Amino acid sequence: MELSINKKYLIFELVKSFTKDDRPYIRVVLLDSKGEQYNGIMFDSNKLDFEPEKGDIVEISGSLQNYNGQMQIKINNMLKGSIDDLYDFLPKSKYDPDLMLNELMDIVYKNLDCEYTIKLMDMFFNDDATIRQFIKHPAAKNVHHAYVGGLLEHTLSVVKLAIILSDYYCEQVDKNILIAGAIFHDLGKIYELDITKGFDYTDSGKLLGHLILGIDLVRGYISKIESFPESKANLILHLVASHHGYIEFGAIKKPKTYEALILHHIDDLDAKINNFGILFEKDKVQTGWSSYDRLLERQIFKHKDN
Amino acid sequence: MELSINKKYLIFELVKSFTKDDRPYIRVVLLDSKGEQYNGIMFDSNKLDFEPEKGDIVEISGSLQNYNGQMQIKINNMLKGSIDDLYDFLPKSKYDPDLMLNELMDIVYKNLDCEYTIKLMDMFFNDDATIRQFIKHPAAKNVHHAYVGGLLEHTLSVVKLAIILSDYYCEQVDKNILIAGAIFHDLGKIYELDITKGFDYTDSGKLLGHLILGIDLVRGYISKIESFPESKANLILHLVASHHGYIEFGAIKKPKTYEALILHHIDDLDAKINNFGILFEKDKVQTGWSSYDRLLERQIFKHKDN
Amino acid sequence: MELSINKKYLIFELVKSFTKDDRPYIRVVLLDSKGEQYNGIMFDSNKLDFEPEKGDIVEISGSLQNYNGQMQIKINNMLKGSIDDLYDFLPKSKYDPDLMLNELMDIVYKNLDCEYTIKLMDMFFNDDATIRQFIKHPAAKNVHHAYVGGLLEHTLSVVKLAIILSDYYCEQVDKNILIAGAIFHDLGKIYELDITKGFDYTDSGKLLGHLILGIDLVRGYISKIESFPESKANLILHLVASHHGYIEFGAIKKPKTYEALILHHIDDLDAKINNFGILFEKDKVQTGWSSYDRLLERQIFKHKDN
Amino acid sequence: MELSINKKYLIFELVKSFTKDDRPYIRVVLLDSKGEQYNGIMFDSNKLDFEPEKGDIVEISGSLQNYNGQMQIKINNMLKGSIDDLYDFLPKSKYDPDLMLNELMDIVYKNLDCEYTIKLMDMFFNDDATIRQFIKHPAAKNVHHAYVGGLLEHTLSVVKLAIILSDYYCEQVDKNILIAGAIFHDLGKIYELDITKGFDYTDSGKLLGHLILGIDLVRGYISKIESFPESKANLILHLVASHHGYIEFGAIKKPKTYEALILHHIDDLDAKINNFGILFEKDKVQTGWSSYDRLLERQIFKHKDN
Amino acid sequence: MELSINKKYLIFELVKSFTKDDRPYIRVVLLDSKGEQYNGIMFDSNKLDFEPEKGDIVEISGSLQNYNGQMQIKINNMLKGSIDDLYDFLPKSKYDPDLMLNELMDIVYKNLDCEYTIKLMDMFFNDDATIRQFIKHPAAKNVHHAYVGGLLEHTLSVVKLAIILSDYYCEQVDKNILIAGAIFHDLGKIYELDITKGFDYTDSGKLLGHLILGIDLVRGYISKIESFPESKANLILHLVASHHGYIEFGAIKKPKTYEALILHHIDDLDAKINNFGILFEKDKVQTGWSSYDRLLERQIFKHKDN
Amino acid sequence: MELSINKKYLIFELVKSFTKDDRPYIRVVLLDSKGEQYNGIMFDSNKLDFEPEKGDIVEISGSLQNYNGQMQIKINNMLKGSIDDLYDFLPKSKYDPDLMLNELMDIVYKNLDCEYTIKLMDMFFNDDATIRQFIKHPAAKNVHHAYVGGLLEHTLSVVKLAIILSDYYCEQVDKNILIAGAIFHDLGKIYELDITKGFDYTDSGKLLGHLILGIDLVRGYISKIESFPESKANLILHLVASHHGYIEFGAIKKPKTYEALILHHIDDLDAKINNFGILFEKDKVQTGWSSYDRLLERQIFKHKDN
Repeated sequence: MELSINKKYLIFELVKSFTKDDRPYIRVVLLDSKGEQYNGIMFDSNKLDFEPEKGDIVEISGSLQNYNGQMQIKINNMLKGSIDDLYDFLPKSKYDPDLMLNELMDIVYKNLDCEYTIKLMDMFFNDDATIRQFIKHPAAKNVHHAYVGGLLEHTLSVVKLAIILSDYYCEQVDKNILIAGAIFHDLGKIYELDITKGFDYTDSGKLLGHLILGIDLVRGYISKIESFPESKANLILHLVASHHGYIEFGAIKKPKTYEALILHHIDDLDAKINNFGILFEKDKVQTGWSSYDRLLERQIFKHKDN
Repeated sequence: MELSINKKYLIFELVKSFTKDDRPYIRVVLLDSKGEQYNGIMFDSNKLDFEPEKGDIVEISGSLQNYNGQMQIKINNMLKGSIDDLYDFLPKSKYDPDLMLNELMDIVYKNLDCEYTIKLMDMFFNDDATIRQFIKHPAAKNVHHAYVGGLLEHTLSVVKLAIILSDYYCEQVDKNILIAGAIFHDLGKIYELDITKGFDYTDSGKLLGHLILGIDLVRGYISKIESFPESKANLILHLVASHHGYIEFGAIKKPKTYEALILHHIDDLDAKINNFGILFEKDKVQTGWSSYDRLLERQIFKHKDN
Repeated sequence: MELSINKKYLIFELVKSFTKDDRPYIRVVLLDSKGEQYNGIMFDSNKLDFEPEKGDIVEISGSLQNYNGQMQIKINNMLKGSIDDLYDFLPKSKYDPDLMLNELMDIVYKNLDCEYTIKLMDMFFNDDATIRQFIKHPAAKNVHHAYVGGLLEHTLSVVKLAIILSDYYCEQVDKNILIAGAIFHDLGKIYELDITKGFDYTDSGKLLGHLILGIDLVRGYISKIESFPESKANLILHLVASHHGYIEFGAIKKPKTYEALILHHIDDLDAKINNFGILFEKDKVQTGWSSYDRLLERQIFKHKDN
Repeated sequence: MELSINKKYLIFELVKSFTKDDRPYIRVVLLDSKGEQYNGIMFDSNKLDFEPEKGDIVEISGSLQNYNGQMQIKINNMLKGSIDDLYDFLPKSKYDPDLMLNELMDIVYKNLDCEYTIKLMDMFFNDDATIRQFIKHPAAKNVHHAYVGGLLEHTLSVVKLAIILSDYYCEQVDKNILIAGAIFHDLGKIYELDITKGFDYTDSGKLLGHLILGIDLVRGYISKIESFPESKANLILHLVASHHGYIEFGAIKKPKTYEALILHHIDDLDAKINNFGILFEKDKVQTGWSSYDRLLERQIFKHKDN
Repeated sequence: MELSINKKYLIFELVKSFTKDDRPYIRVVLLDSKGEQYNGIMFDSNKLDFEPEKGDIVEISGSLQNYNGQMQIKINNMLKGSIDDLYDFLPKSKYDPDLMLNELMDIVYKNLDCEYTIKLMDMFFNDDATIRQFIKHPAAKNVHHAYVGGLLEHTLSVVKLAIILSDYYCEQVDKNILIAGAIFHDLGKIYELDITKGFDYTDSGKLLGHLILGIDLVRGYISKIESFPESKANLILHLVASHHGYIEFGAIKKPKTYEALILHHIDDLDAKINNFGILFEKDKVQTGWSSYDRLLERQIFKHKDN
Repeated sequence: MELSINKKYLIFELVKSFTKDDRPYIRVVLLDSKGEQYNGIMFDSNKLDFEPEKGDIVEISGSLQNYNGQMQIKINNMLKGSIDDLYDFLPKSKYDPDLMLNELMDIVYKNLDCEYTIKLMDMFFNDDATIRQFIKHPAAKNVHHAYVGGLLEHTLSVVKLAIILSDYYCEQVDKNILIAGAIFHDLGKIYELDITKGFDYTDSGKLLGHLILGIDLVRGYISKIESFPESKANLILHLVASHHGYIEFGAIKKPKTYEALILHHIDDLDAKINNFGILFEKDKVQTGWSSYDRLLERQIFKHKDN
């Protein structure tokens, strides 16, 4: 008995070949959105109207059959899925992107009172193409928040910390500028990382990096706001340019304002807190030591009170 | 006409000499507690029952007279002042030490719920000799919070930030341990810096440093608390040992727990915020750039919104 | 006898004061374009229609008179000079800016054959405002080519070397891209350095730096060229972003293409050759050793065959 | 025929399982004190009054039998061995611990003449619990002297070198202080390394390190000696705190006294000499080059005259 | 049917053993000069008059036979090949050594006009033993130009660049000295690397390095030229000593003359250009990114215009 | 009354001028060998048969006279002194050079038993020109042993330590090689430093450095000893090449043999011990802290037991 199938899969492995009578066929290993693996085979694959490749999302119709004692999917047809489908197959933030975006917009507008910064935020939140990527992107290739929605999750957390510390150091800090910098500090990552290639870096990511790509994006918004003060633009872009804190850690400039100083610390802290958590999870540490982490250059310790 | 005087001064300069008829006398430059300078002279200085030295606080009785067109103090007698008087002659925090101490104790006890950490705090706050120094000490020789009460001001601020961030990262952090680490992280400075020598380092400060001196102090408290858990002691002492964050910045160990990670960031941030402020003040910057700071390795910028 | 004067000067020092009968006057030290100093005084300075400041160029009418045995200029009137006049008072390249610009355009167009790069050059050479600054700017605050026209002199030399090495490594190198990168690599310096303040850094120079400022400028040109290939844009901008060669020397990315590798070397070489020459000149070395140079971290040697 | 057995073994591998009729049994790989391996099996392992674990020393009674052509030990009973037994199963110094301790005490007392240092030595040599660990501990996890008795062997050698160099630089060096520092410099390792876990670091070792742990121990002795001079205590503890020589190599302070300078050099030299030997041994080098050593960052060379 | 064989091979693997009746035999894996592998066996190997070793070139006479379905060479006799034969079995420059040498001598003599430098070149080019090695050596173990003739190929390229840049910077540079330095900068590699051991380092290479070995060679030539000026010798040797540019990259001195500065840049550039090419080749990159290279510390990019 | 004078002086300052009637004269400031200063004047200085210069040693005949209340030397004639005289005017080791040389030769020959090393020593000790410089040279420009005889004093001490440690590590160390390395490690300094210019570096010192200059010297000796084993030469020269221990401290290779490891440590230790002493002396420290030393990067402490 065969089980009829019609479902989306990610092509994990793919080999193209020919039957003895020279008909083209392909063998695939497929992943469903829960991460389970299936073997699949499609004969006469030349009838497809696209060239399937490793990494593609495909909608498969066919049947599940027993082949030499193993279950495999006999594929009748395959349709190329869209990029949006891909998100379903990747590790995801445990928080809902739409809820996070709402929360972000909510607290941002509640805390701003500078006309130009508000216009800048309007520009950003109304840039649908960018926002669509922003809410789904990971925040890093593999260090921290490396999952769908990770960029938004990290940005939201840094903005919250920015507001908390603006209130704490209210004598020194311009909250509008710090919030704007917090929102934009990692924005360039939407062009730096390509989620369709397993969170790998893009060409422009490797050639220019997310700092420059982010500054370009923000510069674009600013150029469309009439008489946006040049000095304010410099202060906000400086936060993007300096948020890595030290030249040898990738900062283009060292933090030179109160806001830049704070952004560097809360960005680094929030990323590392996430790092620690992921490392404990990866190593399945309940209590005790993680394995040695090459990037943190240390083992880390989780005690029973954590 | 002479004006009779009876007041405390700091001896800023001092030369010992002899009159033509071989009577010993001393010439001094004196500072009063408002920082104003006076020349002084005392004849027959051998009658004093102590050897006055540069840096001493002395209670002087004498008279203000005109000598060759300049005012000088003719000193009849001098009494050696106590170390406590010295505080009146040094730069001071703008916050009142007693109020800060009250606030510190208040928020600490309000936020602790671990029996052993509470006992540890009791031990510390009841150690009068230490507390007396703690509330008056500077937090550094000249980098940040370098004034009387600076150590307490900085510690209070770091404790507040510790509480804020414990609440923010409540899933990861043990608030009791972070607060204890925040309280003790710079405590060793009371033995590292000698305020009687212009905030210079002591011998033990130069030979051992405030991390070891602080750990010794805390170890002392812990040893007096019955069955204080060794693991908890290690976690708290690790925060003192690692708060500089990187080995090359003087940390004995890198931060290996959530609490250590956070303490490093809030300590560094709070110190640098203070740094920035002092640098702007020193350079009298209203808006614009400070001079180049050798330790920060940069110029810093104050914009009109700060 | 008084000598009547009508000439432009740079105000080197300036003190504002009042006569006994409360009339405002200013005392100035003036530099003429040959670098000679004059004292000057102007009474009733409130009649001026601008507020003269240190660093201003002013056209002065007045007379040279003997005052207490010293010559000084009695100023009758002062007109504010334009920024262009300032160039006459600064150290200058020994090459003529217009000739250098002609040579640059000449060799650039002779060597390009890519339609888009040619359009990009047209865009640049037709941007009068930018070109006007480009031909007069120094290439650095004080390290190399620190004189009017220095940026153009250095750029021209790097472009020549780029062409020579493109021809040498013709199998590996795309000459169009290397030339474009060579032209633009230091362009951002026209906004990074302010020649009116003694070649000091501007706010945007300190907050963002010439790499980002240059990338912004080039991005602006590219955005106006229809269907300029994104991949080509990335390759050219990568040359600007990476020309410092190493992250710790300020590169945003390490050189990752043949062209980036070559640009880094010829830029560094040409700057250092100029460095060496200026150091020998400063130390008046005919043959032998210069003084120790803090930035080069060495003494350098000129032998009789140089 | 079976061979009856009653002997101590180290459990090298251990798997717990159940027979088909649900009786618990364990399979083990055992090491005897000569390093030879045996397979073992114990049925009805629930009858044991302790939970055997990998790394345990156990006294086994049973019989050697042939099972499917392979010899294995059928275990009748197992008793948990003491920690002291463990030493028999670990790599050991080629020198006898007791002889080394005698030699150490002998030369130490022969060379001291300072009353307080002598008292401090008495305190140490009479602290049985500490001495028992001291004579058996390794000096490192895997770099140098990583074997039972290694800490004592290395300490003895450093003390000998300390005496030799005290005599050589007799004008500059206080022999009492240098000897005390030499004795104590690595003492904290008895708490830093856990020999029951294959010389792995303990929690306190990773959180605090052997410098702080050693200083704590010495501070403990000093606190029990009446009127031990504070200045002398600082000088001795400084030797522990600074013996790694450079901050980036883990020193808490740089060596600031003649004694600290010498201790750093002889400690480093003696450790590296041992390193070299172990590396040659590991690579079985008679004459020629070792493999590349990641920690030494070099290959090393043994020539025929060594 | 057997195929008779008489040909040179490189011994890639070798095992010595004995037949059941105790006759010695050896099994080998052989490589011919095209890189193809063959199994071989030789009985009664004790009749050979040398001890064959892995890495040896041997001339083999025997026959190709089928053994258990696999082809193997039955060896009748083996003669030890000379070192010169070895070159045939190693990766080679695509340029002909003799032509390169001719070109080198040609351009060198055409560009020199200093009597002493010419004599120095005569000395070198007439030192047959050295030249024979020079034209066949690789320029590195595995980084760049790591193939037979690589040293000459790299030297030739650096000399060409030296001439080009001498002409470009003719006001600053002494062409004779720069050419001499370019010729000799890597000459010591003929003693540093041993091509008979797979381009591994020699003892003197590891103990002294190619800079010292090269300086020794050049010093030898100079000592035979009557009244060679000491100052000129120092200038040339300085180029060898400093060509790595930075102390941490192995330079004995930083470049302190114009010639040394240029040599460092063209050497580094030419080596890296070769590096890039080899990396693209190894990774079979047509267009796109190479793998991450540990020594370059980056991935590199080849665009379609390269 | 005039006092007649005939004595050697060092010319400390020198001005050439002309009297009103156009006769040439020179004014000098002279130092005698005890370091005392004298003003001097010589009329008709054109009659001298050499051109006196600052730094010269001159034998002066003349008279001491009172000129306007100050004593000055009226110079009748001046003869140029030899370079050997110069030594009398420089700071000197407190040990006698000849005695040190005797002691050095004595202990060296007593400890050697290798025929080739003995021949090498013979070669060195019989090279009169070199030995003459060796016994008078300083060991450094200003760091350690910076006085006449300092090189010999330091070399002697390092040789003594080499013998002591060869005996201590007799199982690992070849005493002949270590002694040879100890003797030669700083020998190149006789060409690196020029004592006639205030211990400044020579051209070859700056261009090549004392490691290469020393290796050249030793290579010269070796080349004259028949069949000196190449391997032994490499081992000895490796000690010269590696004695700075780390590449970034100027070592050409890291120490790769037992002997090289030990030489690095005893050289560094002996130099720093001397450093410490000179720093305490310069700062006149009896007990307490020195000033901050830029090269040691620390303050150092002398306690009452030193």
